Amino acid sequence: MIGVDWGTSSLRAYRLAPDGTVRERREAERGIMTVPPGGFPAALREAVGDWIAAGEDRVLLCGMVGSRQGWVEAPYLACPAGAAEIAGATIRVPFEGARVRLVPGLTTCDPAGVPEVMRGEETKIIGLLGAIGEAPEATLCLPGTHCKWVRIREGRVAGFAPYMTGQVLAALSAHTILARTMDTEAPPHAGAFDRGMARARQKGGLLHHLFGVRTQALMGELPPEQGESYLSGLLIGHEVAAALEAGVAPPIHLAGTESLVALYARALGAFGIPHRIHDPDAAALGLALIGGCLGDTDW
Amino acid sequence: MIGVDWGTSSLRAYRLAPDGTVRERREAERGIMTVPPGGFPAALREAVGDWIAAGEDRVLLCGMVGSRQGWVEAPYLACPAGAAEIAGATIRVPFEGARVRLVPGLTTCDPAGVPEVMRGEETKIIGLLGAIGEAPEATLCLPGTHCKWVRIREGRVAGFAPYMTGQVLAALSAHTILARTMDTEAPPHAGAFDRGMARARQKGGLLHHLFGVRTQALMGELPPEQGESYLSGLLIGHEVAAALEAGVAPPIHLAGTESLVALYARALGAFGIPHRIHDPDAAALGLALIGGCLGDTDW
Repeated sequence: MIGVDWGTSSLRAYRLAPDGTVRERREAERGIMTVPPGGFPAALREAVGDWIAAGEDRVLLCGMVGSRQGWVEAPYLACPAGAAEIAGATIRVPFEGARVRLVPGLTTCDPAGVPEVMRGEETKIIGLLGAIGEAPEATLCLPGTHCKWVRIREGRVAGFAPYMTGQVLAALSAHTILARTMDTEAPPHAGAFDRGMARARQKGGLLHHLFGVRTQALMGELPPEQGESYLSGLLIGHEVAAALEAGVAPPIHLAGTESLVALYARALGAFGIPHRIHDPDAAALGLALIGGCLGDTDW
Repeated sequence: MIGVDWGTSSLRAYRLAPDGTVRERREAERGIMTVPPGGFPAALREAVGDWIAAGEDRVLLCGMVGSRQGWVEAPYLACPAGAAEIAGATIRVPFEGARVRLVPGLTTCDPAGVPEVMRGEETKIIGLLGAIGEAPEATLCLPGTHCKWVRIREGRVAGFAPYMTGQVLAALSAHTILARTMDTEAPPHAGAFDRGMARARQKGGLLHHLFGVRTQALMGELPPEQGESYLSGLLIGHEVAAALEAGVAPPIHLAGTESLVALYARALGAFGIPHRIHDPDAAALGLALIGGCLGDTDW
């Protein structure tokens, strides 16, 4: 089969063996934002038309391509959900020459009844389950623009909580008075990250701690080249503290961009929480596993 | 004497009687950002030159005019500080035809040793002390872009904590995915503000609660015209919760823009904390009181 992880800004396509082995892979700057209305069939053909012509007649898509801004909206599936439930909730997309299905995103409710959603990560999570192992409970953390903390129970996604940390860092660094206090071209500074993280564990709350970034810069206690690392440590520190307070089952399994995962690993270490780092490239295996749950008539 | 509250974006000038009565007042869009290098003497003359010519020979300036970006930098004075200490730390500014002095900002350290600063608010606080009354301890909250929570002890500023709430609201509303979920032209919505505030009192932390603004909008639970009020309630709720945890001496004395003070009053009410609302136009009286502490030879 063919698996496609089709996000907002890029598209990754995999030609997959039945056991999940990746036979061929491609990547294109062809995210859904670049596809004009009605242009999805042509964009898919452009990406993997030759594989289809060569006999692959099953295509499974995941990611923002299934969102309201994508090809067809695939409604969110409620947790708990594993590969079989996700496969059962895929939806058919009309396409000439192959059977194309869309993986749904997942939804859950936090304890106070507020809804949570993810789209795209569910497939990576399914791909990571094997590496996580057989523990009845596990916690997975997927750092990114909107970091997800995921509770795994008996091989299924039991629930999850997204944190807006990455995007808040970007907005504050560029669009508040803090922009003046930091050289965002500077390389990461581990000591400043640690100081920000330590600050997050003190009283006062994030909105107060943020103002301290400016004050310390003003007082010469935080050089511009350390500003962004300090702010990053402050925000990730607040996120990790909140996630731990909400409850986790250690070790925490981390998967994502190497540099970002290293920061979360550092933060978890400071909190004394064991963690393991996994290969972030899990979408291909996830697509294969979900696709493998679909019988021939299901397609 | 003449008092001038000279901030980043505007200038307010007062012709003051010895008892603090305002004889005349003026306001101009002539904040320090509009003054070219070396242009401060001319800008002051433009604003109040006729009052000086009419015989006023003492001018007291407060606000960002005393910052590094202003006329001359007036170093921060350490708390505790009252009108007398602030008057004693004013600095002389060279000017032809009148004696001009600058009010310093204040600095303090939070319990963890992180520095805090304010500039301009110290003068308003001195002006508010009379209205606050004679209690040995009081808490003043000055909402704004960078809201200040101030501890008053025996008529002096004992310490304070700034919160970046207003600026964080602006940055998140305009420069994150939340921008898509809200109609920022819509009038305030009290019910949505209350819901955001209630959310702030639940577990999960601000960075997680922020993502919920998007999710609730996506799920149709938060209409665009309620988005900004919800976000405002969420942020002010987190601020008030952190400030109360840090310790306050009720009732909380509020002073600031009417609409913003009303939101803080609503939040304090939800937390069951009594409050009193004061006239925010306290800078003139503060300038008169600080100026009144200066003897003729001090000028």
